[in-house]
Amino acid sequence: MSEFDFSPPRGMRDFYPEDMTLRNAIFSIWRSVARSHCFQEYDSCVVEKLDLLKRKAGEEIVEQIYYFSDKSGRELALRPEMTPTLARMISARHNILKFPLKWFCIAQCFRYERMSRGRKREHYQWNLDIVGEPSITAEAELLTTASEALLALGLTKTEFIINVNSRKLLGEMMEKGGIAQQLWERLFLAIDKRGKIPEETLLAMLAEAGLTSAQIDYVFKILQINSLDEAGSIVGESSAGLKELRYLLELMNANGLGDVIKFDISVVRGLSYYTGIVFECFDSQRKFRAIFGGGRYDNLFSTMANRSLPAAGLGFGDVVITEILTEKGYKPPSDNIETIVIGYYSEEQTMLVIKLANAFRKRGKSVNLSLHSEKPSAFFSRAGSSGAQYATFVGPDEMKTGTLRIKNLATRTEEVHQISEFLE
Amino acid sequence: MSEFDFSPPRGMRDFYPEDMTLRNAIFSIWRSVARSHCFQEYDSCVVEKLDLLKRKAGEEIVEQIYYFSDKSGRELALRPEMTPTLARMISARHNILKFPLKWFCIAQCFRYERMSRGRKREHYQWNLDIVGEPSITAEAELLTTASEALLALGLTKTEFIINVNSRKLLGEMMEKGGIAQQLWERLFLAIDKRGKIPEETLLAMLAEAGLTSAQIDYVFKILQINSLDEAGSIVGESSAGLKELRYLLELMNANGLGDVIKFDISVVRGLSYYTGIVFECFDSQRKFRAIFGGGRYDNLFSTMANRSLPAAGLGFGDVVITEILTEKGYKPPSDNIETIVIGYYSEEQTMLVIKLANAFRKRGKSVNLSLHSEKPSAFFSRAGSSGAQYATFVGPDEMKTGTLRIKNLATRTEEVHQISEFLE
Repeated sequence: MSEFDFSPPRGMRDFYPEDMTLRNAIFSIWRSVARSHCFQEYDSCVVEKLDLLKRKAGEEIVEQIYYFSDKSGRELALRPEMTPTLARMISARHNILKFPLKWFCIAQCFRYERMSRGRKREHYQWNLDIVGEPSITAEAELLTTASEALLALGLTKTEFIINVNSRKLLGEMMEKGGIAQQLWERLFLAIDKRGKIPEETLLAMLAEAGLTSAQIDYVFKILQINSLDEAGSIVGESSAGLKELRYLLELMNANGLGDVIKFDISVVRGLSYYTGIVFECFDSQRKFRAIFGGGRYDNLFSTMANRSLPAAGLGFGDVVITEILTEKGYKPPSDNIETIVIGYYSEEQTMLVIKLANAFRKRGKSVNLSLHSEKPSAFFSRAGSSGAQYATFVGPDEMKTGTLRIKNLATRTEEVHQISEFLE
Repeated sequence: MSEFDFSPPRGMRDFYPEDMTLRNAIFSIWRSVARSHCFQEYDSCVVEKLDLLKRKAGEEIVEQIYYFSDKSGRELALRPEMTPTLARMISARHNILKFPLKWFCIAQCFRYERMSRGRKREHYQWNLDIVGEPSITAEAELLTTASEALLALGLTKTEFIINVNSRKLLGEMMEKGGIAQQLWERLFLAIDKRGKIPEETLLAMLAEAGLTSAQIDYVFKILQINSLDEAGSIVGESSAGLKELRYLLELMNANGLGDVIKFDISVVRGLSYYTGIVFECFDSQRKFRAIFGGGRYDNLFSTMANRSLPAAGLGFGDVVITEILTEKGYKPPSDNIETIVIGYYSEEQTMLVIKLANAFRKRGKSVNLSLHSEKPSAFFSRAGSSGAQYATFVGPDEMKTGTLRIKNLATRTEEVHQISEFLE
């Protein structure tokens, strides 16, 4: 009687069965690749304490949080990212857990923002985190795992590129330029905006952050750097940030992934908690937004739980990769279960076909049992377009003779069986 | 530096890796059983339009909805159940979809309520729905699928019972008792409260609903009925509701599940949209809350989308079944992937072990590669308690001789291989 808009809430997605097939294919590869690297799966509720999120996120994210109060006045929120929750869960059990630990999850996350291509207000994010390991082997493990997922999804090594940088290196450069450490955080967040906002706005942000115009010139000069050798000429080859980056490239090389990783001075990431190596992966043609991103956050646990735990992590959303796979014409693998469609002529056969359906299921088949009786012509036309491998129809003749003709819908051949074969 | 409470928001759950193993085992059985019955998976966002939920839910549920406004003033909510969303998604495509359709999802749902055993403020619910089918074969298919999931989870047929009733039958009885149809909805919701609230409160609710005291006596008499024959003596054997129940029992019998289903006049369900058969499944000892529940809702699509689509569905939450399985000492199957732990003595072996790790992964193993060098004793003690099947350690000797000793951690035997076997 009422007119109603049947679309989902703005920025949020419905998954019809055909969408689910693709989503399940992506999730399944995420899970299996993570497990093959011995990451353990965890999860938490999509609703998180607002206070926790406010403490850990960058300014920008706080503005974008969906939040509300429950009936006892607790401030709750839909998590915009998983890292604060991971840190909460690990802090809660830091005396019991064994470090280093490798955890993953596939978590729905929410951000209230203007919508553009590759962004919704919700997405699922595959999170990989390694906690308790100071070595760059952690970053290499993260990047290898994520790269293997892209390869398993059918991308080639020429179709994606991981841009990598180091906040530690950037910090060392800022030090050389006489820029005080307390300015770095705002500086990094401003640099992260480069290319996304007009150059004048960026300049204004840097000035507002407290940089002199000479310092701003220096920052822009730094951002022209193209290679680790150039970076070395500024900070010296003994720079810790530089060494870490060189080591990471070497590790990725050993992994056969040297050609997908590239130093890029402009990568800083928009979250304030990163402390060392940071990275972003894009499609090679840069047609889409970042496929995944992350980095090292060695101070998060000490600010949160007063406990020093080095950590590195990565977030890989489902939206951009879905767009890339769709453009490539990716066909998700179908569930390999063989399916038989069973139809029947009248209610007299109902009990028999139910028993047959059970018998086929016990033999490992998926069974699509008709929910009502119908004519054979209607049944076989429906069965033919169902995608199933087999079909069989039970009518008065079959009941009389005790035989069952099982049609192979692909080869259009049929086998005759005794019904009694299938019933105990 | 700050003291922070690391628990999740009240009523919501964290899933540590050991919890995830059990959750994944349940979800995996839900999915595979649904697929073996040819239900197709769908999903939607946990955030739904408040308006949609208000229209479709019973009064009680509306009070329990978590809701909030976004920055454009849209009223949004965390869905308390999946059926309104299912109806929205199907209504949006009713011209394209082929009916009857069988869909399932595993959806997180939220209710703000006082917490008790078997209830949290969030849970995951396996939803099975059949839309476009008026026959009771739909209810039988739902109940068979859910029962098979319970059996697959290791419950025996003596450990659960499905109580079934019919609102149609109840309606016919109310008609016989002269209770006007417009009172039925409130009457059903009151009956649903029986056993959960004091008898006087129930009486007051019925009086408030507009029933005379003679009618209330009649209702209580009806609620004493114990068998379909007794019900038949009131409404007559030609009653539509009675016939449907008898047919359902017959269908379940054909499915070998006649002994898990039982007529129970007191089952009515708390949601206002049910129109026909309703059911609830419990553990046989009634120690826990309902395992699953559902029924037929033939009018939901006509009130919502002005289109007549008979439907039946079922919701099966993860909380109660988790409690039951935990009490039974259920051990979820481990992922069968064979795991090898690889360790190394110093950074000189790093590149070699990375290559070995890749090689083992390509051979289908899960590889737990140490993130830092360590002494063999520390490595093997860690490997031994890791649950992995194999372990191998690379030090200067292995590099010199080019051999690799792979230890089987269960049998404590070892095989010697050439490292070159594994590298291209």
